[in-house]
Amino acid sequence: MKSDEVEALVFDVFGTVVDWRTSVIEESAAFGARHGIDTDWPAFADEWRHAGYSGGMKRVASGDLPWMKVDALHRMKLDEMLSDLGVTSVSEDEIHRLSYVWHRLKPWPDTPEGLDRLRTKYTVASLSNGNVSLLTDMAKNGGFRWDCVLSAELAHAYKPDPKAYETTADLLSLPTERVMMVAAHKHDLEAARATGMRTAFIRRPDEFGPDNPPPDLTPDSPSGVPYDYVADGFIDLADQMGCE
Amino acid sequence: MKSDEVEALVFDVFGTVVDWRTSVIEESAAFGARHGIDTDWPAFADEWRHAGYSGGMKRVASGDLPWMKVDALHRMKLDEMLSDLGVTSVSEDEIHRLSYVWHRLKPWPDTPEGLDRLRTKYTVASLSNGNVSLLTDMAKNGGFRWDCVLSAELAHAYKPDPKAYETTADLLSLPTERVMMVAAHKHDLEAARATGMRTAFIRRPDEFGPDNPPPDLTPDSPSGVPYDYVADGFIDLADQMGCE
Repeated sequence: MKSDEVEALVFDVFGTVVDWRTSVIEESAAFGARHGIDTDWPAFADEWRHAGYSGGMKRVASGDLPWMKVDALHRMKLDEMLSDLGVTSVSEDEIHRLSYVWHRLKPWPDTPEGLDRLRTKYTVASLSNGNVSLLTDMAKNGGFRWDCVLSAELAHAYKPDPKAYETTADLLSLPTERVMMVAAHKHDLEAARATGMRTAFIRRPDEFGPDNPPPDLTPDSPSGVPYDYVADGFIDLADQMGCE
Repeated sequence: MKSDEVEALVFDVFGTVVDWRTSVIEESAAFGARHGIDTDWPAFADEWRHAGYSGGMKRVASGDLPWMKVDALHRMKLDEMLSDLGVTSVSEDEIHRLSYVWHRLKPWPDTPEGLDRLRTKYTVASLSNGNVSLLTDMAKNGGFRWDCVLSAELAHAYKPDPKAYETTADLLSLPTERVMMVAAHKHDLEAARATGMRTAFIRRPDEFGPDNPPPDLTPDSPSGVPYDYVADGFIDLADQMGCE
């Protein structure tokens, strides 16, 4: 691939741009300490992410739930987990604030500089299942910057639904072939490629923390079609793409 | 109004954030000089804006034209004007580039600093009839910055259709009452207020240039309901809103 054929890079966010797990564990444990709630906070974060977010999106995709923002899926699961823990006396304001921890996830250390360098040659946008306001708050809180905030919310269809990728390219006024999906998750890249997008696989060895099996960091794609780039973070990607 | 009730400011762009007229005149005249086309370039810019953009949006709103991006409306009118001028030998690439002058409009001098200061306390987003890619390119080219790029394109309904304002507030996850529309055009502010938004009227005395009657700069609103703010540009607005 000649990298100058691509005009825009679109980024998966949870796990690729930000370290969701450390941020959620820290804020959840602090919430627990304030309210006298004791549980396994890393497991709490993992359940919130996997059953609440991923599981919730699958229920939306299957039609079991109507379209809703990821904020609403996060809140629904949080209410259920707090109920299971017997929590009844915490104020609505406090619960709302914890449910919005996903708006305050911290970036990986290379994110701000890497995105800034990539932006010198490319349009740099999010393409997350997170809703627009979540992504907007997250970038402000995290000190990193998008040229525009794009989201599966704008298609009312979660990745890996092709509509999420196709709507994004349409909003960028580009054919999918001139857009590159940047993600730490191979299923996201496969779905993007199926719509015509280029692909960059980012290795994030610490996404799932020390308590879980490590992510698949091999450079091979499930389909056997090579990724256009394989990089250890965004500074490495910027180096490979000639962005100073 | 207590300004701390508002969480997000959304900005009209053409005329409010950027000086569309000077930018379009300059690039159109340079295009003419390259291709030996002579016409009244200020009148050319005014016709492109008023008949092409404003007139085109009215045709979309009435159902006379299907939904399309402002880029497409700009291109349709440009083709018509070039045809009227007898231009037949200019390449597609050159015409496309001129039609994208709207992606390269220059900001008013106070725009970059004013938006930066307002962003310290508020979410700062565009709310233009211009399409997302146009607005994204414009901010990159013009050296100013949005927290997120929002557009009537995301509602498939042009301002002053209430859907444009309501969709914007929904994407910000805010009730319209916590969003303030910032615009140099009173009809835009009236339509925003009708959906519940707050209003800030920005005086841009030079929007229509020296060849046209000046804009209405009086602080009064057509409905008689006072604007929450009346400001001479964004630095003045930042001062009034306590953003340093």
